[in-house]
Amino acid sequence: MKVLTPKNKYIPRAAINRLSTYVQVLEHFALDNVEIISSKELAEACDVIGSRVRKDLAYFGEFGIRGVGYQVRELIYTISSALGVDHECPMVLIGVGNMGKAILNDMDFRPRGFNIKAIFDCDPFKIGEVVHGLEVHCTHELRDISTTLDAEIGIITTSPERAQRAAQHLLDAGITSILNFASARLKVPEHVHVEYVDFLHHLYNLAVRRGATSGQ
Amino acid sequence: MKVLTPKNKYIPRAAINRLSTYVQVLEHFALDNVEIISSKELAEACDVIGSRVRKDLAYFGEFGIRGVGYQVRELIYTISSALGVDHECPMVLIGVGNMGKAILNDMDFRPRGFNIKAIFDCDPFKIGEVVHGLEVHCTHELRDISTTLDAEIGIITTSPERAQRAAQHLLDAGITSILNFASARLKVPEHVHVEYVDFLHHLYNLAVRRGATSGQ
Repeated sequence: MKVLTPKNKYIPRAAINRLSTYVQVLEHFALDNVEIISSKELAEACDVIGSRVRKDLAYFGEFGIRGVGYQVRELIYTISSALGVDHECPMVLIGVGNMGKAILNDMDFRPRGFNIKAIFDCDPFKIGEVVHGLEVHCTHELRDISTTLDAEIGIITTSPERAQRAAQHLLDAGITSILNFASARLKVPEHVHVEYVDFLHHLYNLAVRRGATSGQ
Repeated sequence: MKVLTPKNKYIPRAAINRLSTYVQVLEHFALDNVEIISSKELAEACDVIGSRVRKDLAYFGEFGIRGVGYQVRELIYTISSALGVDHECPMVLIGVGNMGKAILNDMDFRPRGFNIKAIFDCDPFKIGEVVHGLEVHCTHELRDISTTLDAEIGIITTSPERAQRAAQHLLDAGITSILNFASARLKVPEHVHVEYVDFLHHLYNLAVRRGATSGQ
């Protein structure tokens, strides 16, 4: 089995999204004690065509047994490690409102190594409160705390008006990977990666597909 | 000015995401009373290369004045109507927890026509509560209420375990466009469109890009 990491090979964004779905779906199969899966079964569970699954998995070299399928646990390991998500990734979160709490409540991150280690807010009424076992700290402490934690990713769940300031706190702490839930574009230096979780994109996609269907 | 709707032309998903960003950014320009914008300015504000902006806008035919730029309001109107989001789109939401409340709190949907008209939960303690001006109804009332409202999109913000049941309620009400925030894959008939808002996809993307950068 030959594993190529994304460092050696360019994997398009859409493929990364699908690979991430494969891992999630495969983990459900693993929980159900399924040991072997065919690309057809994986494709159906992920709502993707079979040839696409085989093509995506080919990024990691040749593996799987022809006519039999893939070892579920091996496949999870291969994809995860190739995507670089096989180690613990400490994260910090700014903005402990409803969205922040919903994220903290999400049980899907942690088993995949994405671990929120510290949470911040600038509201004095929230500072000191404990949410999902984490104490809310003042954003002015972010730099010191996240340096100590070696935080790799910063999550912004503030209001749109406060998002840029939150980003600045993250940049000051040397964090260059940001997941932004606030509906505001961030101004950041070129070496900083921002992922926008934009619900409107999804709504637009639904609207366009509705239009396409009703126009048929 | 020639406007081609997506009904006549296939627009790739990535382009729809960018067009959605253009609309959001253009609306900020409009609020600042900017009347004309060059593709370069729009590109910079959206973190996209200029030629990509011009190519994306070309889906709608030839417009804009060479050497001058695009009329901001005309461009907003053109993209929105071509994407089929120029009319009111009534929505219903199931699951009034932190995530549901965060969505209800989001001020970005409504001016774009996406309007949450009714909210539902199966928790008897939540039923009757008023959240952002909307009364929480029992999910068993969903069918009747959403038919009356002519709801087009259903939003699922339940726990992963309850997502499939929520989807069934939406299907029973004849809703065929679903925005799913719960981290669970849904089993739905082929004609139903599901958009998954998957935070893990974004985290994986950040992790991969971190890996790619540190490997350089």
